[in-house]
Amino acid sequence: MSSSRLAPHSSGNAPGGKTQSAEIICVGTELLLGEILNSNAQFLAQELAKLGIPHFFQTVVGDNPLRLKQAIAIACHRSSLLIFTGGLGPTPDDLTTETIADFFETPLVEHEDIWAAIEQRFTARGLTLSANNRKQAQLPQGAAVLPNPVGTAPGMIWQPRPGLTFLTFPGVPRELYPMWENTAIPFLKEQGWGKTQIYSRSLRFWGISESTLAEKVDAFLKLDSPTVAPYAGQGEARLRLSVKAASEAEAREQLDPIQAQIQALCGLDYYGTDQDSLASVVGKLLQARGETVAVAESCTGGGLGQKLTDVVGSSRYFWGGVIAYDNQVKRQVLQVETEVLNTQGAVSAAVAEQMAIGVKNLLGTTWGLSITGIAGPGGGSEEKPIGLVYVGLAGPHGLSHREYKMSDRGRDWVRGVSASAALDLLRRSLL
Amino acid sequence: MSSSRLAPHSSGNAPGGKTQSAEIICVGTELLLGEILNSNAQFLAQELAKLGIPHFFQTVVGDNPLRLKQAIAIACHRSSLLIFTGGLGPTPDDLTTETIADFFETPLVEHEDIWAAIEQRFTARGLTLSANNRKQAQLPQGAAVLPNPVGTAPGMIWQPRPGLTFLTFPGVPRELYPMWENTAIPFLKEQGWGKTQIYSRSLRFWGISESTLAEKVDAFLKLDSPTVAPYAGQGEARLRLSVKAASEAEAREQLDPIQAQIQALCGLDYYGTDQDSLASVVGKLLQARGETVAVAESCTGGGLGQKLTDVVGSSRYFWGGVIAYDNQVKRQVLQVETEVLNTQGAVSAAVAEQMAIGVKNLLGTTWGLSITGIAGPGGGSEEKPIGLVYVGLAGPHGLSHREYKMSDRGRDWVRGVSASAALDLLRRSLL
Repeated sequence: MSSSRLAPHSSGNAPGGKTQSAEIICVGTELLLGEILNSNAQFLAQELAKLGIPHFFQTVVGDNPLRLKQAIAIACHRSSLLIFTGGLGPTPDDLTTETIADFFETPLVEHEDIWAAIEQRFTARGLTLSANNRKQAQLPQGAAVLPNPVGTAPGMIWQPRPGLTFLTFPGVPRELYPMWENTAIPFLKEQGWGKTQIYSRSLRFWGISESTLAEKVDAFLKLDSPTVAPYAGQGEARLRLSVKAASEAEAREQLDPIQAQIQALCGLDYYGTDQDSLASVVGKLLQARGETVAVAESCTGGGLGQKLTDVVGSSRYFWGGVIAYDNQVKRQVLQVETEVLNTQGAVSAAVAEQMAIGVKNLLGTTWGLSITGIAGPGGGSEEKPIGLVYVGLAGPHGLSHREYKMSDRGRDWVRGVSASAALDLLRRSLL
Repeated sequence: MSSSRLAPHSSGNAPGGKTQSAEIICVGTELLLGEILNSNAQFLAQELAKLGIPHFFQTVVGDNPLRLKQAIAIACHRSSLLIFTGGLGPTPDDLTTETIADFFETPLVEHEDIWAAIEQRFTARGLTLSANNRKQAQLPQGAAVLPNPVGTAPGMIWQPRPGLTFLTFPGVPRELYPMWENTAIPFLKEQGWGKTQIYSRSLRFWGISESTLAEKVDAFLKLDSPTVAPYAGQGEARLRLSVKAASEAEAREQLDPIQAQIQALCGLDYYGTDQDSLASVVGKLLQARGETVAVAESCTGGGLGQKLTDVVGSSRYFWGGVIAYDNQVKRQVLQVETEVLNTQGAVSAAVAEQMAIGVKNLLGTTWGLSITGIAGPGGGSEEKPIGLVYVGLAGPHGLSHREYKMSDRGRDWVRGVSASAALDLLRRSLL
């Protein structure tokens, strides 16, 4: 290996010697103790796949310099691009940077600009710098800073010898993501990777199971290109369409007609693509009509409002709502009739509808959307089991509701799916 | 290594040569493509930690026999217990078993009992056996079956040479779990593991940065046993205390005094342990006093209510609240004065306090807790930047508020930390 440029178009398949491929090395004793899921490895794996960078091994190793050196030695031997996560923090057991430097017998040098940025960040937050923070400003001689826009720990880009590149990232996902996006991808593309990328889009469905969806689009699942694969989200089904292409325009040309055919097959069960959420789709529909919505929540306790306000700009159509966890709040603030509460129970279609009209009247919105249900783990009965949820909707044309009998997959699941089910009821009413 | 018995009480720390430790090897191209999260590695890591089996490396490798052999060679050299997941299915790219056999130049033999079980399972479900299924009945000569009660693919227990043990499992978690529980744990205990287990607990802090906390408890970070290590959560700092012990009682004896000393050092910044959340701690305090709380949320849009109702049994002290996203809701439902909104702005200490007292009065609770802030990405100004958040509290003894100037780490982060900051204000007021 004499060139310092990565060679992305080699097959990456030579079985014996070293290949032009990446290896992900996640450093952290918390991974070895099973305290956290290794979502960084999945993220990086997806990103490498998109860029068409072969990647044959992932290694997890603890915060131990000797074993980390063993892992580096093995990875240098079989991979040309080593991507590290973890061990860049300010504490004494964060030792990824110094161990890499030590492995190559290279001294650490302090970067004034990093140190200044750390100082500034601490001062702005009124925090006191500790001596530990100093080491976050040190990188091996010859390494370039891989800037961290959201945290104190920057990463590095380093080619300790020709044909071998190291990238390091903190273990915190929300720091890793922008660093990858802003700096690593441009760097890798400049190095010649990513000329033919895999372009994917995810079609999202509500109100149809993964298996029924798979049956419905069976013919597409057999395509060689684009490939179509079903998978499941929280209470929803998805299809991933993927194609290898030289440009986004070329990818679009191949994906658009397939998507159009699938949408035609699936009707209203299809609700959006990629970053769309039920909340963002509902938001667009409301904005297009100049209408507004308020929520009344019992078992979700604020989760529906939170989903609606996850969407940037939601203040244009979401005015607010009432969390009516206690029945007294349903009565006094939402004007739910005591008689109905007593005879039908708080988890009933009638109460859902009264909550919806109650919040619509109180806030003066076009729509009132409500949820009442049994999220568990307690509170279920034979007649009204855990997972029984009513969603109510009050709108310009009157009242409606939906009854859901979900399987009990835990409190979080029931609450999350209930909020989505409410959004879906509003979505279908807006279409 | 001449004994065929694993030696769990060795230190497992000898850096150079082979140690008495386990290694997890997950086989599957879907992991390298990032299609699935490696939850099996986390599960096995947790189980090994509980059994006190040292575990220093995890490897992920694709469905490729040559690279799988490379991984086996490396793992045999540094670990004595190799735990595989994946590659046991009936398709041609499932080749974990035959690759392991091939590595040790050992022939595969068919197990009549496995084959009979596969046949029976297929007949019972009315399915037709394919030729591919036959290979699932084959194991290396000398290997014992590791029965799979819920799927067709059994695993194996094999000691290809003294001091080296292989366990294989399918990649499907719901097949792995019972196989581990029913067969692997008893086998490992019989081998002498699990007599000394690792017990960990996580101390949780709010209102102190990870680096300041690390400095404060510096002396503890140097302990050999129990070990104390800092790490970070969303806006919060944590310390992990771990100790090797023969029983939970013995572990407690060692961990309790350390925890007590750390708590004494950190005062009110310590809020809970392990599964405690700010919401659950607040809930316990409210219940102990027989008091209730209601929330008034602007920028969090329901997220504070959701956090409170994440806690099972929260209906005993959480009555509900008002999501006052729009200023009209602040005025009309929460009685925030128009004058104050106009002069101070919606994001101000005065509005936070009026929201808190407004919801306390409306719902008739002991406490009213409010949030108003700028979550971004839009809406920030020089005077009121993104991350400026006011938390208000109305209680039996009057009104208070806190001002937070968070760094802008994204809308989700600002909203999540705001909700936690509000809970923390209430917690400190209850103590």
